[in-house]
Amino acid sequence: MSDFLTLGLDIGGTSSRAVVISADGRRHGSGVAGGGNPTTHGPAALKQVATALTDALAAVDPSDVRAATLGMAGYARLNADPQLRSAFDATWAAVGLACPYRLASDVLVAYAAGTSAPDGTVVVAGTGAIAARVRGHELDHVADGHGWLLGDVGSGYWLGREAVRIALADLDRERPPGPLAAAVLRTLLGTDAIATRRRDTAHALVQVINAQPPITLARLAPLVLQRYGADDPAAVDLVQRAAAHLADTVASVRRPDETTPLVRGGGLLTSDTALAGELSAVLGVSWPASTVYAAGDAAAAAAWLALLPHVDDDPASVHRILGLS
Amino acid sequence: MSDFLTLGLDIGGTSSRAVVISADGRRHGSGVAGGGNPTTHGPAALKQVATALTDALAAVDPSDVRAATLGMAGYARLNADPQLRSAFDATWAAVGLACPYRLASDVLVAYAAGTSAPDGTVVVAGTGAIAARVRGHELDHVADGHGWLLGDVGSGYWLGREAVRIALADLDRERPPGPLAAAVLRTLLGTDAIATRRRDTAHALVQVINAQPPITLARLAPLVLQRYGADDPAAVDLVQRAAAHLADTVASVRRPDETTPLVRGGGLLTSDTALAGELSAVLGVSWPASTVYAAGDAAAAAAWLALLPHVDDDPASVHRILGLS
Repeated sequence: MSDFLTLGLDIGGTSSRAVVISADGRRHGSGVAGGGNPTTHGPAALKQVATALTDALAAVDPSDVRAATLGMAGYARLNADPQLRSAFDATWAAVGLACPYRLASDVLVAYAAGTSAPDGTVVVAGTGAIAARVRGHELDHVADGHGWLLGDVGSGYWLGREAVRIALADLDRERPPGPLAAAVLRTLLGTDAIATRRRDTAHALVQVINAQPPITLARLAPLVLQRYGADDPAAVDLVQRAAAHLADTVASVRRPDETTPLVRGGGLLTSDTALAGELSAVLGVSWPASTVYAAGDAAAAAAWLALLPHVDDDPASVHRILGLS
Repeated sequence: MSDFLTLGLDIGGTSSRAVVISADGRRHGSGVAGGGNPTTHGPAALKQVATALTDALAAVDPSDVRAATLGMAGYARLNADPQLRSAFDATWAAVGLACPYRLASDVLVAYAAGTSAPDGTVVVAGTGAIAARVRGHELDHVADGHGWLLGDVGSGYWLGREAVRIALADLDRERPPGPLAAAVLRTLLGTDAIATRRRDTAHALVQVINAQPPITLARLAPLVLQRYGADDPAAVDLVQRAAAHLADTVASVRRPDETTPLVRGGGLLTSDTALAGELSAVLGVSWPASTVYAAGDAAAAAAWLALLPHVDDDPASVHRILGLS
């Protein structure tokens, strides 16, 4: 007797993860490979997806996989690009998969990785930042995620940019750089010594940053979190401002009286970072009757979403067995 | 008997202006041409400089010009680039000039275009924004001017970007767009009608902006000032926030008890714009004992700066005769 299996694929910028599950919530295989988002990394990234899929399918008959969900940032672009779509379909067929698959937003998958409730709110912060209202396991309304130039407030990019702006403000105001500013100078210029003409140091800082893509500023986010851990007032203030911005984005998609689950996802919120702690504190004040959950394994959540239309048992119980709630 | 003449050159992004004066403050010639900054427009822009110089020298013997000052944004880059510098020197010689010239910051020239006092403060807002403390007719300390990615707060770029962010916030918060947001949508998308899926309109707005250089956002500044004129609360708030940012930049370079002149310059502050008015109001509160002057003709101010080491009479009187104070 053949199994009824579903597959979840989480295609991210830095890793691609695949998980195969059965209707009872057991895992039958998993695979991990490098970043595989073809809309940002080009069709060659599909090799990573193929590796993750092949590993996840190693112990099962691919024809037992009856449904699949693919979570990916910019999934709409994959749909809109026939060439990219057929390259993806070729990868799909090459690993022996014949079932239909559904493309989903990574934001929806992050929500499902934190709760099995059909209605709720998700806020994601990594390099960028976005929040969404979910209704019936579908994205209903989305806020921010507008990119570094116009939005992504409270994101890793935003934390990095503001950390540099704090260093520039210290130089402009002829103050000795504070610990966070000094750490920024050391990281970007190799020294926190200030030139005799302070303006030369400011110029050097601006030039180093302008020589790289703006999004590179997100690499300074861990530095901010580290300085927060050292009780540096500038870093604490910055992380609290980021949390307030993220809570404001949440408020764009969530009624004040809402009591549904709140899920926090993305590299800066899934684990117990300083930003996650500050955000949970702010959300707890604005929505005291709600619980904040951390998003878990996105590939397993995608597999669970693929299973959802087919599951006879309690989907919440399968969600728990998968370790997602 | 030959005259003692000096020449002032104001090399901007959109125009190049030259003025020839004598020690008594009389104008002996002037010339205007297109944008001629070789550090941003390339060496070909020097043709514009040559045109402005030729016209300014039409009625004088170029050998009577004994000193010159060139005001230009990024003048340090001209100094640092031997190829560009010799291209400039060739232009200089080709129009018959043999005197030495001094390269000066456009910010210092803007200051001199508003006052003859040796010590004071200047704040400039156009596409970008910068403030400086002046001591003895030299830049002593500069704040902001860090470019659109990291600074230029309160500038034309900043006004434009914030206007778009107001439109995105209305879309995110599922509010009808306010008059400023609607004007932004009409300007950038050709219509202020919102798509059935509001997110589609937000996406379209972000895509239109991402398809152009970020600095292009400065083109929306006149729209903000126009909406301010129509008493649109969002535009009034935005212009007031810009003025507060500029005053904050001024505070980086000016002591609270200082009573020296304050000069406002740049496309958004020289004329009596809404931003100039709001800024003067804020500066008047922070430095009640100081007078705020609008910068006048930058080329004449550059010629006056070139004359300064050579003038026996009262330099303030020459400054007045030139119409700069």
